[in-house]
Amino acid sequence: MYAGIDVGGTNLKAGVCDADGRLLAIRKAPLPAFTGAEDFARLLAELVKDVAREAGIPPRELAWTGIGIPGAAAEGKVIYTCNIPLTGAPLGELFRRHLDVPVYLGNDADCAAVGEYFCGTGRGTQDFIVITLGTGIGGGLILNGKVYAGSGMAGEVGHMVIEKDGVLCNCGRRGCWEAYASATGLVRMTREMIQQNPDSGLAALAAEQGEVTARTAFLAAARGDAAGEELRLRYLSYLAAGVINLVNIFQPQVLALGGGVSNERRELLLEPLQALVEKECYARHGGAMTRIVAAELGNDAGVIGAALLPKAK
Amino acid sequence: MYAGIDVGGTNLKAGVCDADGRLLAIRKAPLPAFTGAEDFARLLAELVKDVAREAGIPPRELAWTGIGIPGAAAEGKVIYTCNIPLTGAPLGELFRRHLDVPVYLGNDADCAAVGEYFCGTGRGTQDFIVITLGTGIGGGLILNGKVYAGSGMAGEVGHMVIEKDGVLCNCGRRGCWEAYASATGLVRMTREMIQQNPDSGLAALAAEQGEVTARTAFLAAARGDAAGEELRLRYLSYLAAGVINLVNIFQPQVLALGGGVSNERRELLLEPLQALVEKECYARHGGAMTRIVAAELGNDAGVIGAALLPKAK
Repeated sequence: MYAGIDVGGTNLKAGVCDADGRLLAIRKAPLPAFTGAEDFARLLAELVKDVAREAGIPPRELAWTGIGIPGAAAEGKVIYTCNIPLTGAPLGELFRRHLDVPVYLGNDADCAAVGEYFCGTGRGTQDFIVITLGTGIGGGLILNGKVYAGSGMAGEVGHMVIEKDGVLCNCGRRGCWEAYASATGLVRMTREMIQQNPDSGLAALAAEQGEVTARTAFLAAARGDAAGEELRLRYLSYLAAGVINLVNIFQPQVLALGGGVSNERRELLLEPLQALVEKECYARHGGAMTRIVAAELGNDAGVIGAALLPKAK
Repeated sequence: MYAGIDVGGTNLKAGVCDADGRLLAIRKAPLPAFTGAEDFARLLAELVKDVAREAGIPPRELAWTGIGIPGAAAEGKVIYTCNIPLTGAPLGELFRRHLDVPVYLGNDADCAAVGEYFCGTGRGTQDFIVITLGTGIGGGLILNGKVYAGSGMAGEVGHMVIEKDGVLCNCGRRGCWEAYASATGLVRMTREMIQQNPDSGLAALAAEQGEVTARTAFLAAARGDAAGEELRLRYLSYLAAGVINLVNIFQPQVLALGGGVSNERRELLLEPLQALVEKECYARHGGAMTRIVAAELGNDAGVIGAALLPKAK
């Protein structure tokens, strides 16, 4: 049995699963105030012990623990994290002081891709990409059946410029894909559209709901509002720009979209996106066509993938 | 000993090299009028036999022949070629009718990357990218020490949109990197700059040389011409946009630039490009920095890499 931990921005999640990625138990805990890498490692180990016992497994009998962090790691050490000050910490070694099983560290988006690869839409593929459309854009790359991490920080597909000198991105570049095609980017474009079209159904819907979300555009479009529909098509064109870039670079068998946006109605998002890919991608000249799908595993992909991480190393 | 063939747009080149990629003999022949895949395969086999004899190797004693084609191949079959009608041809099988050694097919840009990986600037790396700035932009990806080809047509990095709704590319998309950062793109931008600045040193230089080439901008910039310098910086910013995208996606140890443009003076091209990468790439947040270098092997990279292709499969 394998343990996986997903270190998120606000929560910790730990689970135990079998070789097929079936979760036997899962626990969630709020991310506590950070009091040092040693405390953090002990907390993770305690969480794994708890969830293992819940699954009926003596913790020491776990084959390993995989840990997905919002950052990069190599050889048991954290190279970089963006929201927890763990950079440089020998997290694997610290963890093993409290639970002596092998520890594998990986990027959280990579872990989500591993979960989806073994247990979701990536099953049976060799080259598989998961793009998560959230606050930012996360990318997990499975190439030749293995996680690809470069020197530890590869897969930053959100920070691919698709509009030179465009909107300023959090990373410091201008025109990154993330600034347009993430949920945050969609909310920004929705706000701009409402400002330009204060009398639209889109504006009315936002007023009615009391907020602008990444769903507003799609809801307005589904109701037949012209501004909503224009916005949906604009968002699609930005989303497609990056997706087609990745298809041209990787030509994976499957590219899965995750995050809330990927749950929009197929005919409003995935189907037109697949059509744009087939119209513009380079492999239309004769190669195999990448299938664009919605990720299946949802929020548990990160835990399952962390648990199965060593199988894709 | 290993034979390699580089099938170019105008020439065929065949060579025999040892395990270290040292060429023992090399032969060039003009690409003849195409009279069918069978004739073409026989011609390739004859060329290999000739060059093997020249190297003092009985052709049947070659360990294998690797063939780089301008297109994609899988399992001995051509999936797609762009300038020779070989699509669908079982080129490996046809070749073996005339010279019965194992045959490996690959993309020509991938072969050039393999050559550079084993015998040039990629030595000692695990993740290595070669970008060739020519008529178009070729990309060869060595990931985890192996050629990455996806479903056969991966690595089309030139057809990555960096300027949404920008200049029309040959591939049908708008704003592809290739339309700006290839030698062809630089010539186009040079022509536009001359038209806008007919009294510039850049325009005078082009008139003096009787033509606009991919060197004109750099020559004018080196002479201190303001329009030439502005153009050099503009070209650099387009080149950097795509290079940084690739660094963010792959975080390779080394990214090598090939093609004529890569031979420009270091302080005018490679050094400012490296500085832009270090300023903008995501790994500046703590990861390992990709080194940007000029490819070393030049025109023979394709032949050497084709010969060594199976070592990176």
